[in-house]
Amino acid sequence: MSKGKKLGREVAIVGSGMSKFGVFPEMTTRDLFVEAYKDMTHSVDKGFDPEDIEATYISNFSSDIFEGQCHTAPIMADWVGQIPKPATRIENACASGGITLRQGLIAIASGVCDVVLVGGTEKMTNLPTENVTDALAAAGDTLYEVNCGLTFPGLYATMATAHMHKYGTKPESLMRVGIKNHENGALNPKGQFNVSIAALMKSKQEKALNKGTPVPEWEDELAFMKDNAANPVIAWPLRLFDCSPVSDGAGCILLAAGEIARNFTDNPIYIIGTGQGSDHALPERKDLTSLTAVKVAAKQAYEMADVTPDEIDIAEVHDCFTIAEILAIEDLGFFPAGKGPKAIDEGLTRRDGSKPVNASGGLKSKGHPIGASGIGQVVEIWNQLRGEAGPRQVQNVRVGLTHNVGTTGGSGVVHIYERRN
Amino acid sequence: MSKGKKLGREVAIVGSGMSKFGVFPEMTTRDLFVEAYKDMTHSVDKGFDPEDIEATYISNFSSDIFEGQCHTAPIMADWVGQIPKPATRIENACASGGITLRQGLIAIASGVCDVVLVGGTEKMTNLPTENVTDALAAAGDTLYEVNCGLTFPGLYATMATAHMHKYGTKPESLMRVGIKNHENGALNPKGQFNVSIAALMKSKQEKALNKGTPVPEWEDELAFMKDNAANPVIAWPLRLFDCSPVSDGAGCILLAAGEIARNFTDNPIYIIGTGQGSDHALPERKDLTSLTAVKVAAKQAYEMADVTPDEIDIAEVHDCFTIAEILAIEDLGFFPAGKGPKAIDEGLTRRDGSKPVNASGGLKSKGHPIGASGIGQVVEIWNQLRGEAGPRQVQNVRVGLTHNVGTTGGSGVVHIYERRN
Repeated sequence: MSKGKKLGREVAIVGSGMSKFGVFPEMTTRDLFVEAYKDMTHSVDKGFDPEDIEATYISNFSSDIFEGQCHTAPIMADWVGQIPKPATRIENACASGGITLRQGLIAIASGVCDVVLVGGTEKMTNLPTENVTDALAAAGDTLYEVNCGLTFPGLYATMATAHMHKYGTKPESLMRVGIKNHENGALNPKGQFNVSIAALMKSKQEKALNKGTPVPEWEDELAFMKDNAANPVIAWPLRLFDCSPVSDGAGCILLAAGEIARNFTDNPIYIIGTGQGSDHALPERKDLTSLTAVKVAAKQAYEMADVTPDEIDIAEVHDCFTIAEILAIEDLGFFPAGKGPKAIDEGLTRRDGSKPVNASGGLKSKGHPIGASGIGQVVEIWNQLRGEAGPRQVQNVRVGLTHNVGTTGGSGVVHIYERRN
Repeated sequence: MSKGKKLGREVAIVGSGMSKFGVFPEMTTRDLFVEAYKDMTHSVDKGFDPEDIEATYISNFSSDIFEGQCHTAPIMADWVGQIPKPATRIENACASGGITLRQGLIAIASGVCDVVLVGGTEKMTNLPTENVTDALAAAGDTLYEVNCGLTFPGLYATMATAHMHKYGTKPESLMRVGIKNHENGALNPKGQFNVSIAALMKSKQEKALNKGTPVPEWEDELAFMKDNAANPVIAWPLRLFDCSPVSDGAGCILLAAGEIARNFTDNPIYIIGTGQGSDHALPERKDLTSLTAVKVAAKQAYEMADVTPDEIDIAEVHDCFTIAEILAIEDLGFFPAGKGPKAIDEGLTRRDGSKPVNASGGLKSKGHPIGASGIGQVVEIWNQLRGEAGPRQVQNVRVGLTHNVGTTGGSGVVHIYERRN
């Protein structure tokens, strides 16, 4: 039995959905959320009455800055017919989604609610790029990070070079994360990018041929990734294809108390572990190659679930930058510290590997609409554990994990899920 | 026994504190929070080990806009030594504080935590006034309210005129709310304004005398309130002294599971009821003279607490504008709909009346640092129920209530408290 704390009640996911992630100039935060909610309604096998929902929790990073709109939760609740019930917004930078799921879970475990709607939504692309960079920088510490000129590619590049220095990690391993995630993402119709690096190379070659310009010859995907023209450096060693995009999107989860979950579906996905941690700003940390917030969160979640890292069949991790996925698979205990790159190089985290990671395409390929990203991870695990992930389905998965990080690890949140059918 | 839902576990307040509310150009959100935390530490009768705290919940409206700082909760947790434990930010406009208390309460009731720190902080005054107005307007609905040119004084003036139209409410009743709250606030050293209207009149008269300018003669406080020079109209019928100020400030509450509360103090204050509701934007509502979100929240809280409105000995209500206090005392069932003004006129809500409301001075006099306002209300109820409110102590109080509203009632949250010693 677990040594960790237990929830007062069992909680299960009984429905999940998401909007398409991408660039939608004509849509607002609320439009995206309505699309995700509608998608969720179709996923509830036995249907549900919206009146059953007792509270709504909304993950949103900063519609404050992106749209001049605060008080986001009641507005989202209004647009899906949930007035006059409680609606609460959670903001923890890029970890908002996972932490919002956690609050929904806790609300049911507390006995205050039996059925809770958990959503995440973000509309980022209507601002000019430099303003988006400023908005994202607001997640950093204004005293210790932002005012020193650090933006997020620079912060994660700092962690990448620390990992390279300590463990001899090569940029090629980072590139292989991007190659894998785009390969998975090519199979995800809801993702922002639906193209593998191989297909992208071919398309670029065909374009050049049609234009009559010199046709680039790349011997393999790594060669493409090392090409400064095709994949320019953003903050060394991170290049364009090491960075997740700016995205619009929303996700939606329906949670129910364990004892009533089968009223909604014969195949609920139980949330058996939750953990959350936080950390100092990057310059105050002793080690840049591991995220304490994630380790703390993972420990709590594993203990509550009474599961070891080896027992995780599939995971969605927070690959805002490719180095983040390497830190994730080490901090989650999937591979020893410093051995993440080797696991990547050997293909162990591919869909057919021993530890499939980011079968959805991850934030890198699926997109990173901040408040929705952590919710999108849960949607993927729901689909995978239920065997409904279509062409990207991973075989024989019963226990799943999501890992969601805010800033450079200022927040970390981990959940563990189980299929029981 | 209650017909309402019950929390899975009993939860009590075992400590509470606040910064001074006011205008502090040299302080940031985190400085204010540290001041409140320190104040809280002194309030815990038997002391506590900061290691006992298992999670931090932070209420903050928009340090995003005010300071360019998101991801507020882990930063606040860091500054009071709570890394690497979970830290979560809640934003529901002006109801953020009450809703954050509710999340802390739910976290303990769920079994995930035994001891939780709940804080609220806002730093508003460093922006130019017109930018503050824009920031506050972001709490309104950008589609239905803000884009029509409505800012908050206008929105509440609309509700005030609706109340006047339906019930014959007179501006004098609104003025009496301000007079009462400044009279109470004059006794609150932590408040932004420490001056009664009577004292303010006297001070203005003395100033004129010293300057040799004509000395204004007001026959009473109402005459002062009706003087267009002394109390100019902001959005009719609301005048300057009908509006809460722009403020900096923070508050802090220590919550513990009921079964361990007496490890911290022999006089814990139990939270016996919680309720939360939400509502459409103002233009979509059928009735402008009552807040559905508050009625829903109050019903839940009363049922959970198994208490009637008549049994509430003291309340802190959300008087962002004086009309809001009138709506509050009606929606909470203290007085019948339309009878709030009469109760005010008769002095029933004064400290020595039958239903003391806003003994702290309310947002009107104590100040309204948005994320901290709902927490400040709880601090007052803690002090009052423990008999530690000094010169503004209300006699014979055992059951208290806080009422916190977001926007024009887009969110409403109500808590009920009990002293058992």
